[in-house]
Amino acid sequence: MPMISPLVVPTPVQRIECAEAERRGNAVYLKRDDLLPFSFGGNKVRIACEFVKDLRDRGCDALVMYGDRRSNLCRVLANLCSIEGIPCVMVATDADGGSGDSLNARIVDRFGVEVLECASDSIAATVDRAFRLLSGRGLTPYYIYGDRTGTGNEGTAARAYASAYPEIGEWERSSGTSIDLVVTPYGTGCTQGGLVAGSLLAHDGREIVGISISSRPEGRALSVLRSTVRGYFEKEGLACPADYADHIHLETKYTCGGYGVVDERVVELVETMLRENSVPMDPTYTGKAFRGMLDLIEERGMTGKNILFLHTGGLPLFFDYLTAGN
Amino acid sequence: MPMISPLVVPTPVQRIECAEAERRGNAVYLKRDDLLPFSFGGNKVRIACEFVKDLRDRGCDALVMYGDRRSNLCRVLANLCSIEGIPCVMVATDADGGSGDSLNARIVDRFGVEVLECASDSIAATVDRAFRLLSGRGLTPYYIYGDRTGTGNEGTAARAYASAYPEIGEWERSSGTSIDLVVTPYGTGCTQGGLVAGSLLAHDGREIVGISISSRPEGRALSVLRSTVRGYFEKEGLACPADYADHIHLETKYTCGGYGVVDERVVELVETMLRENSVPMDPTYTGKAFRGMLDLIEERGMTGKNILFLHTGGLPLFFDYLTAGN
Repeated sequence: MPMISPLVVPTPVQRIECAEAERRGNAVYLKRDDLLPFSFGGNKVRIACEFVKDLRDRGCDALVMYGDRRSNLCRVLANLCSIEGIPCVMVATDADGGSGDSLNARIVDRFGVEVLECASDSIAATVDRAFRLLSGRGLTPYYIYGDRTGTGNEGTAARAYASAYPEIGEWERSSGTSIDLVVTPYGTGCTQGGLVAGSLLAHDGREIVGISISSRPEGRALSVLRSTVRGYFEKEGLACPADYADHIHLETKYTCGGYGVVDERVVELVETMLRENSVPMDPTYTGKAFRGMLDLIEERGMTGKNILFLHTGGLPLFFDYLTAGN
Repeated sequence: MPMISPLVVPTPVQRIECAEAERRGNAVYLKRDDLLPFSFGGNKVRIACEFVKDLRDRGCDALVMYGDRRSNLCRVLANLCSIEGIPCVMVATDADGGSGDSLNARIVDRFGVEVLECASDSIAATVDRAFRLLSGRGLTPYYIYGDRTGTGNEGTAARAYASAYPEIGEWERSSGTSIDLVVTPYGTGCTQGGLVAGSLLAHDGREIVGISISSRPEGRALSVLRSTVRGYFEKEGLACPADYADHIHLETKYTCGGYGVVDERVVELVETMLRENSVPMDPTYTGKAFRGMLDLIEERGMTGKNILFLHTGGLPLFFDYLTAGN
């Protein structure tokens, strides 16, 4: 792993002002994973570190990643590969609108990544092409998501938040505050799946809720979450608790209609968080999920709860928002 | 102070890759004050907190600040005043090129700040105007820099880094690493002055070097630093060590000709830091000062030293750089 160390450190937890939640007697805390001290922070720092460890464990020496040009994960992986001297190919889809002019794309373009553009119906074929390209150079490539269809490596990414989960308990003990509910944006399922695995290992029965930010259908999203939790236990060589699926909670009604689609309430949330708490949230992930969490609190009629929202980062997307004339 | 807490926490120290310094057997560490968890971080978070505490101590209820539109300090103060409900007027100079379209300006404009534009030769008169404006509303304004000419409050700002200084010693003890030299960008002198005061209080005799990033003449810059250190001891009611001036070290030859002026080597440094260490530095402050530090290491022929560079933040300026088509 890189000399700059440590890349992953326990992140601060802050209580924030949140009138909407507080008027029902709830308190909202943020776990600031956006402040992880590498590549502009975010949950993807922890996840990228797990992928690179796994690449080494498997004896690979080149990396194939997939995402759209705004991807936070691809930005962090590109940065890590650049530092580690690992050749890196990005299979870049134009699904969800592309946006090659995003700040994440500008950062990735600095890191010597080879970008293979593809349509959303030819991802598997383009992953194959990336493999042939790297193998032809005598390298042994690693695909972050497993096989060409993007399955089989769920357990690796889940390790990141299974390992991070104990930080919540440590903060509870040091602060004397008990967290009732943990909320995280749901995009790929890696983060939520890892948190659920961590909670299962801790036997704390805590509710962990994912707020979906894309139009991935609920059935598919739940299936991915189940594979992720099972994949984690399998990879660790541990028995997965029989009732694990009961610990997966996902809300899919706050998506505004799809990935990257926002409404005025999400924009207002982003502005309010900046003004009242000085916390940058982006409209695509954290702002949308936090807005959904507030609606969920209202709909469930929650009172007197301590709620921890995982700030999963995405700072370049916040600055995309600011520079877009907002 | 605001509910979001703590705004000021000990920041991580990281060893980074730095071939230029390492080829002489030196090691470079960054103290990541850019990751302070408030308003995009930076040294100005600590400093703004001291100003707002002092405003309250003096029984004031409105704030007058001064800076150009790209100012990091004004961004943090605007954010803090917005959260605290403190009316805030910014005296904004167009000296040094202005740049009202910077990200810091976009952020400040969200916080209900009244901006009074002025030429660089009418700052004192505009500060007076800001005072009349606020007094006319029955408020008791506070000017961050003291009197209308901008002097008399140096000790307040210096408190920030006099208080932060012990974090360096704590990190040394916990890591088993001894720091020989601390380097900081020099802009206003608040940060360096505070560090020098902290070192004097610790009686550790450590060399603290400021690298000037603007064309403020050396004599004037040293005079400001001396006033800042003296102002700190005076404010704290402590005796200032007689030899305090011997502990002030300033380098003024790495300015590229003035504030905001950069050359290719500074740009290359910014790109290298991003690529090799995943650390954002901006060309105006941290990038220029770090470049100067490397030149200083070479010129002094330093070998075998552990050097700590204070990353003073300025993240919005880094993103200004990225969005400017770089």
